[in-house]
Amino acid sequence: MNETLNIIAQRYSCRAYDGRLPEKVKLEAIAKAAVQAPSAMNCQPWQIVVITNKSFIEEMDAEGMRMLSEAEDKSSYERFMNRGGKLYYNAPCMFLILKKPGTDTDTGIISENIALAASSLGLGNVICGMAAIPFNGAKGELFRQKAGFSEDWEFGMSVLVGYSAKAGTPHESDMSKIRFID
Amino acid sequence: MNETLNIIAQRYSCRAYDGRLPEKVKLEAIAKAAVQAPSAMNCQPWQIVVITNKSFIEEMDAEGMRMLSEAEDKSSYERFMNRGGKLYYNAPCMFLILKKPGTDTDTGIISENIALAASSLGLGNVICGMAAIPFNGAKGELFRQKAGFSEDWEFGMSVLVGYSAKAGTPHESDMSKIRFID
Repeated sequence: MNETLNIIAQRYSCRAYDGRLPEKVKLEAIAKAAVQAPSAMNCQPWQIVVITNKSFIEEMDAEGMRMLSEAEDKSSYERFMNRGGKLYYNAPCMFLILKKPGTDTDTGIISENIALAASSLGLGNVICGMAAIPFNGAKGELFRQKAGFSEDWEFGMSVLVGYSAKAGTPHESDMSKIRFID
Repeated sequence: MNETLNIIAQRYSCRAYDGRLPEKVKLEAIAKAAVQAPSAMNCQPWQIVVITNKSFIEEMDAEGMRMLSEAEDKSSYERFMNRGGKLYYNAPCMFLILKKPGTDTDTGIISENIALAASSLGLGNVICGMAAIPFNGAKGELFRQKAGFSEDWEFGMSVLVGYSAKAGTPHESDMSKIRFID
């Protein structure tokens, strides 16, 4: 065991934040760890938008919850209502990853760098695909403008980051997923 | 800076291995770090096949190089020939990730866990999409059988792991990819 393996083992998907904004130096360190991620042919097909503007986050959150409440299938809406009624779990910071079309694997790689870097700095985090919702609704164009989407760039993923409101536990390791060919 | 951030910063894509097989305990620790990765809705849409069988790796390598040599575009073949003539860079171990269709982001996430876990244990590693080549040729069905592909599972990614034959340097961090919305 070493510190990195320990961070990987202890990390959990945090779905409750206390709202305190992490120190800027920590957010900068996480962003730097992000762009150190490897990518296919080193193309680095990403942009990292670190959003800490509270009213922007709340506006997207409210619009996302409104969209879920009006969806035919109410199961997602109910799941979020049971978790506190916030699409972004009261997280004070969103690492929004913009991607080039067809680069999902690279998006996954960089997402995990962000998640592990945040964990290593004592911050809760969750890789949150549901963050895409408000970008795809009636206010989507407005949000994309505010976040600085330019041509050929699309929503890749978001990683929510902040101080955890309560301790969580990692998912169970399914060792049956592993086999060796010696 | 902490140990995890340091591992992220120092990691590089290793394309030259000395061929020594890493200790089994290290390979097991890396495999465990892999299945600790987060995934969408915790579906864990992956299987990890840790291949250290030398003749199997060499057979796939030779077939992949043969396919590249016969491709119309010779640029990939020449690139590998300039790097030592081996598709897998003489790596003694392949972490082969099988995926469910449409789960590339999860594949990226687990690939990075494997890469960082290997780096933390002093092992060179490279996330290698080119490893797919031999699975798609005339001997593809044979290789898929040997690797234990079952229905609905497809090649996701491979991460090659071993002792580095020479020190490498990380790619440059492109800080212009980052912006803040405060």
